[in-house]
Amino acid sequence: MKRMVGILGGMGPAATVDLFDRIVRATPAQTDQEHLHILIDNNPAIPDRTEAILQQGPDPLPGLRAGIQGLENQGADVIAIPCNTAHHYLPALQATCTCPILNMITETAQAIRHRHGDIRKVGIMATRGTLAVRLYQDALKAVDLHPVMPQTAEIDDLMEAIYGADGIKAGAPAHLPRARLLQAGAAMIGRGAEAIILGCTELPLVLAEGDLSVPLIASNQILAEAVVREAMPAAVPA
Amino acid sequence: MKRMVGILGGMGPAATVDLFDRIVRATPAQTDQEHLHILIDNNPAIPDRTEAILQQGPDPLPGLRAGIQGLENQGADVIAIPCNTAHHYLPALQATCTCPILNMITETAQAIRHRHGDIRKVGIMATRGTLAVRLYQDALKAVDLHPVMPQTAEIDDLMEAIYGADGIKAGAPAHLPRARLLQAGAAMIGRGAEAIILGCTELPLVLAEGDLSVPLIASNQILAEAVVREAMPAAVPA
Repeated sequence: MKRMVGILGGMGPAATVDLFDRIVRATPAQTDQEHLHILIDNNPAIPDRTEAILQQGPDPLPGLRAGIQGLENQGADVIAIPCNTAHHYLPALQATCTCPILNMITETAQAIRHRHGDIRKVGIMATRGTLAVRLYQDALKAVDLHPVMPQTAEIDDLMEAIYGADGIKAGAPAHLPRARLLQAGAAMIGRGAEAIILGCTELPLVLAEGDLSVPLIASNQILAEAVVREAMPAAVPA
Repeated sequence: MKRMVGILGGMGPAATVDLFDRIVRATPAQTDQEHLHILIDNNPAIPDRTEAILQQGPDPLPGLRAGIQGLENQGADVIAIPCNTAHHYLPALQATCTCPILNMITETAQAIRHRHGDIRKVGIMATRGTLAVRLYQDALKAVDLHPVMPQTAEIDDLMEAIYGADGIKAGAPAHLPRARLLQAGAAMIGRGAEAIILGCTELPLVLAEGDLSVPLIASNQILAEAVVREAMPAAVPA
């Protein structure tokens, strides 16, 4: 039996489109009917997570909680949230819902451990909020990986690429945010990063494997694969 | 006030991703919070519409009706269905729901009339089911446009490109269905078509403007623009 997937999205909308696309592409299916039943609540009115964490902006938790409960009420068996920073609220959300919410952060750290056995030092590209609450630092250390952090000017570049007037959330032409991201990535590689996590779901909209000299780990691709793994019936051994 | 959008999708899933993507791109927004609240029920288990129309396959109407009612119960103010063939059931669906369901077929015919005032003869690329129930033929005639129909071998090519083992729903490499579609399109142009409707939401996944010598009208792009027009608050005149 396939399980029904719930996606709490809108943070941002383009990243939610991207996760949906990656799930459909990762699903082994030849006809419509073999695909997964997916409910999406794309609610971009949920307050910004980084602003809430760093500047006492409006609390996103009530909106996140209402979204999760709505998806569960409609029958979702497993839930994904394509926003890394929102994972700061995951323990509080999981406490109020009985169906499992996939953890994009720990899935990503574990995927690096399993797929790149020789890599130890991992750069983190993420929002200031995700970095401040140590989501990736702690997840990497839990699987014996060493985080390579962006420095102050690089974090400024990441935030500008994500939130700026010439940034991804504003729908700017991709080459504008790309230039800033490549610079920040190259600096982390210079400090020893052997792979870089694209730890904000907006980043893979403008960066792809091959853009830098080390593997780029797209957190929303890992999340898409986890969704398919959890929602598709296990293959029957031959 | 923005209106909440409901999308009844899954017919197929990749076309639903495509509509979602086109809506997000068509929305005038600089931040997440300026985007539309969109609920998507991607339910690929709804039985195939063409099979039901032509071969007495399982009836999709109960599944379509349940999906529409679910979206309405969750607060959708306006609904879109990114499947042309499913529009055969639109009168029956609209009769059971109070919020408006956008009509991709009539929107597309009217858009051609308004945007291409000099065009009279319009080719139709669509499924055998959409053609059999005359959705586009009637909508074009209602706005004084003349349909150029695909002939038997071309309809076979369209169906193979959409449903075949090397087709779009099966996730085949784009060049395989593309070759069949270009051939069918060229034949209709040879019979006088001055524009061609991509009247199945899978078609714009592999065909784009410029691929043939006449304008290609993507029905899901027209639907995306109609969604934004209906759901965004009207611009205040300066």
